[in-house]
Amino acid sequence: MQDHLLSELGQQLRVDSVRAAAAAGSGHPTSSMSAADLMAVLLANHLHYDFEQPRHPGNDHLVFSKGHASPLLYSLFKAAGAISDEELLTFRKLGSRVEGHPTPRLPWVDVATGSLGQGLPIGVGLALARKRLDKVDSRVWVLCGDSELAEGSVWEAVEHGSYEHLDNLTAIIDVNRLGQRGPTRHAWDLGAYARRLHAFGWHTIEIDGHDVTAIDRAYGDAASTVGRPTAIIARTVKGRGVAAVENREGLHGKPLPDPEEAVAELGGVREMAVPVLGPAAAGIAQPSHEGPLTLPRFDPGEEVATRDAFGQALAALGTARGDVVVLDGEVGDSTRTELFAKEHPERFFECFIAEQQLVAAAIGIQARGWTPYASTFAAFFTRAYDFVRMASISRADLNLVGSHAGVAIGEDGPSQMGLEDLAAFRAVHGSTVLYPCDANQTARLTAEMAEESGIRYLRTTRGKTPVIYPPSESFPIGGSKLVRATDDDHVTIVAAGVTLHEAIAAADRLAQEGIHARVIDLYTVKPADAQTLRAAADLTGALVTVEDHHPEGGLGDAVLEAFCDGYPMPPTARLAVRDMPTSATPAQQLAAAGIDAEAIAAAARQLVGAAN
Amino acid sequence: MQDHLLSELGQQLRVDSVRAAAAAGSGHPTSSMSAADLMAVLLANHLHYDFEQPRHPGNDHLVFSKGHASPLLYSLFKAAGAISDEELLTFRKLGSRVEGHPTPRLPWVDVATGSLGQGLPIGVGLALARKRLDKVDSRVWVLCGDSELAEGSVWEAVEHGSYEHLDNLTAIIDVNRLGQRGPTRHAWDLGAYARRLHAFGWHTIEIDGHDVTAIDRAYGDAASTVGRPTAIIARTVKGRGVAAVENREGLHGKPLPDPEEAVAELGGVREMAVPVLGPAAAGIAQPSHEGPLTLPRFDPGEEVATRDAFGQALAALGTARGDVVVLDGEVGDSTRTELFAKEHPERFFECFIAEQQLVAAAIGIQARGWTPYASTFAAFFTRAYDFVRMASISRADLNLVGSHAGVAIGEDGPSQMGLEDLAAFRAVHGSTVLYPCDANQTARLTAEMAEESGIRYLRTTRGKTPVIYPPSESFPIGGSKLVRATDDDHVTIVAAGVTLHEAIAAADRLAQEGIHARVIDLYTVKPADAQTLRAAADLTGALVTVEDHHPEGGLGDAVLEAFCDGYPMPPTARLAVRDMPTSATPAQQLAAAGIDAEAIAAAARQLVGAAN
Repeated sequence: MQDHLLSELGQQLRVDSVRAAAAAGSGHPTSSMSAADLMAVLLANHLHYDFEQPRHPGNDHLVFSKGHASPLLYSLFKAAGAISDEELLTFRKLGSRVEGHPTPRLPWVDVATGSLGQGLPIGVGLALARKRLDKVDSRVWVLCGDSELAEGSVWEAVEHGSYEHLDNLTAIIDVNRLGQRGPTRHAWDLGAYARRLHAFGWHTIEIDGHDVTAIDRAYGDAASTVGRPTAIIARTVKGRGVAAVENREGLHGKPLPDPEEAVAELGGVREMAVPVLGPAAAGIAQPSHEGPLTLPRFDPGEEVATRDAFGQALAALGTARGDVVVLDGEVGDSTRTELFAKEHPERFFECFIAEQQLVAAAIGIQARGWTPYASTFAAFFTRAYDFVRMASISRADLNLVGSHAGVAIGEDGPSQMGLEDLAAFRAVHGSTVLYPCDANQTARLTAEMAEESGIRYLRTTRGKTPVIYPPSESFPIGGSKLVRATDDDHVTIVAAGVTLHEAIAAADRLAQEGIHARVIDLYTVKPADAQTLRAAADLTGALVTVEDHHPEGGLGDAVLEAFCDGYPMPPTARLAVRDMPTSATPAQQLAAAGIDAEAIAAAARQLVGAAN
Repeated sequence: MQDHLLSELGQQLRVDSVRAAAAAGSGHPTSSMSAADLMAVLLANHLHYDFEQPRHPGNDHLVFSKGHASPLLYSLFKAAGAISDEELLTFRKLGSRVEGHPTPRLPWVDVATGSLGQGLPIGVGLALARKRLDKVDSRVWVLCGDSELAEGSVWEAVEHGSYEHLDNLTAIIDVNRLGQRGPTRHAWDLGAYARRLHAFGWHTIEIDGHDVTAIDRAYGDAASTVGRPTAIIARTVKGRGVAAVENREGLHGKPLPDPEEAVAELGGVREMAVPVLGPAAAGIAQPSHEGPLTLPRFDPGEEVATRDAFGQALAALGTARGDVVVLDGEVGDSTRTELFAKEHPERFFECFIAEQQLVAAAIGIQARGWTPYASTFAAFFTRAYDFVRMASISRADLNLVGSHAGVAIGEDGPSQMGLEDLAAFRAVHGSTVLYPCDANQTARLTAEMAEESGIRYLRTTRGKTPVIYPPSESFPIGGSKLVRATDDDHVTIVAAGVTLHEAIAAADRLAQEGIHARVIDLYTVKPADAQTLRAAADLTGALVTVEDHHPEGGLGDAVLEAFCDGYPMPPTARLAVRDMPTSATPAQQLAAAGIDAEAIAAAARQLVGAAN
């Protein structure tokens, strides 16, 4: 497209952004107007995309990291003929797909954005998938705001992108000088951004973001740059084109005061339809092969850490399924993903100590149809909680595996203990939370979790635990296991993971005293098996829940919910980690926290005594 | 201290690190040995610290961002005469203060570390407090690992440190080339780090980290650098001094194979006592003034957003208390901390869009005895969850205020909705979770939260809600309010924040139908007021809980816990946000989520009907 038409298209995008926000009565038109020329040139001359086939394997990817510029994105979709003007004007209304911030309810949107500093990290994941997995010539274009470059996650992504030589990735930085409440740290100092990005190994181009010739040349430059990603750092004006709002503070996230006048000032409504370039690549090395799954088998009685079983199962799963990809946060020797890395190095991604990027890369990779497992210590997933939350809005299918859960890690102390992870993952919309206690169970769940939709979290244990299930046992997600049961049990102990073994030991002690304890292995913490819990409650009239986690939001709360609709809940003792742990051996830790066999037996005795 | 003695001291620190890890049977001696010379020179010639008076206002600060090098830190404390050799050898044992990773149980430790990438961000907070609040000539020295420079939080801190011209801050980067599972991205390429840090505005010095002369000169250079922080980038050898472990992979976090031989190779045990330089500064402009607190007063019936009441109350609190400090994540116009900023600019810190740094800076500032309030959208605190978790291990006293909670924000959509925050904050050890429904309540709680210990979280609402309490009403933390109650109530509705008003509307509707609904305002979600909940359950025999939050881990779970010890729990309907929200008006959102007055009334009717 020629320059004067590109400028016209830029104005059209501004006009439509203003109109959409006006129709909604809210939204971010001024943040859209600054980037309109950048996006006009991209859409018309550089983006390769078949809007009728959003799943076409050769399509480029366009990620709006500054998700609040959604009016601009939707105006682009309109210009490309993907949505109608009518739909554009349903912006932010109930039932509309054109939401306040982009989500994959629109088929041309790969991932949800709107929490700043996420689009570029996920874009790195997409570019990695394109380059190292799909092996297709497709480009990833990420529109970033200047404000969001303060987010550390952006610098994790910048480092990751250059380390992986992602020359198929272009960041377009809309330097409009103004954040939400005022000027950014660097205002219009393009050099400040360029110096930082260049030091991190990126190719950088500084331009006037309203000069369509310069923009066009910059995209060409980016596309021909080899061996490293490119950042186009564009000086722009927030609210560009409308004097009443141009470059003014206090107007972030507000419709224009006089939309009609603004549209007139911008030259009126246009109806340019852009013939977008088709996908550059046709074929694709899709993840294809499916073979028989031969999970590792462990003999009952053996002592095996569940993290070891996870690593072995993951390696086996990688052999059976060509779509399985593993990401590590520089702890693969601890989480045991190194076992996968050794067998399938081409599908293993080292993200170093950057947990936000670890999860973000996985989100980008799953958006390309691969099945990622990202793993670090349970404690350190808290670093990426915003990414997990947003992944659920992205409708992402994601396997996250946290090792070194709970006080059972022992001497390293509380900084390394995952004690909030069950609560955090349970609270994520549509999540599945698994906590196996033995090696065979872990192996099965490692394979099964990939069949669930949404965010699936598996919690593994550092130390060895006895194998209690035969390799043939199946563990449906949503189920539980009765590990000890008679027809006249007096009390039920509900546990999972490391505390399940303490529960068994407690039951053995209680049996010697004539107290029959039912033991439920609640290996699916979410969704919890309400039926089994209720049946046990009916029969035994007393419950003990025990978890290596803080008392709030974890297994204990999951059990309570099974009784909340008025189903009679028996007296329940809730054992959990209530004090701040220090350093000690694993056994001392369990004792100090009051979640070991002795504490469980004592709680059970008290409940049974009180009931008699 | 002269160079040959400094080298001797370095060897002593190595020997003691090896001995401590050997006594524990675990720990990170090789990561300690690489930094031993760096720390020897610091302790002997540059650190100003009175170990007998750890609270001396003129002391420097030493933060081990690479917290796993704790053996080195404790060996330093021994060399300074702060702990005995005997205590050093209790490393990682039950009851010992010398834990696996440093915590403030040792009075010379300001904050817990061990989750990498936290020490430098918190160090920025300490340096800010020293420079802009204490106004004292005290230096902050942060020992960083090279691996942790992959964490985005480090780059948030680097940006923040140079922006604030923190020339009292020195980062000492121990570039020992090896991470946990292998080489770091940049191995011994000191220039890679220097280029990045320099581009971000830091003064950088590259040295051999085992050359005590060069180290000494670098510290002098750092101390005399004006207007920007300094990074000393030191090439070191992991396991330095013991051939069996020097510069080898696979030895991270393991005691030496033959500690006795290693100690011999290092020249044997030494007992050098280091005369540490005293505090450079004597006096301090302590946060002093205390005046009368004049909170804003709102008239019942008025419509006021709780975020507005928070902002006004915070400004008033700042007038009454000179120790109150406020930090913003570039949303102060939304959270309303801008009201504080206008009145007390000298105690307001803009952290831009960098939520990890927002919380980290607050942690550093509270470690100096100030009372920080850090505020952003409730949704975006998920970005800093690891910092909040670690803050509880730091025994930090921290006020965090999250605005824009829940679906009630309306059109912006799910990316901006805090829907996991109650679960996340409840799961933090020792936390307090507050969720006010009206302006007077918010004002009171804003002031009161500062009196609690630990992590206190206050959740505010974007839209206006009616004032229902008089300004004179008090709201003790841990309490609740009976908003509607008769002697013959049929059902109890438990709500907080925005749903409290829906509950009142539901009760009004139900009353017209002859159903008496008790309404409890559970403004303290943690610790929840079990007594009032139980009394209501006894009386009414049916409960409805309703929250603008996902069903897991929030208010509903908090209510269930009041009944878990066998106290009879009545049939309970739990209303919460169970589907993924989209864009819509606030009223439509509440209706779509099934948490509005109509849904509450329907649930209550059903429960009452079932009971009759």
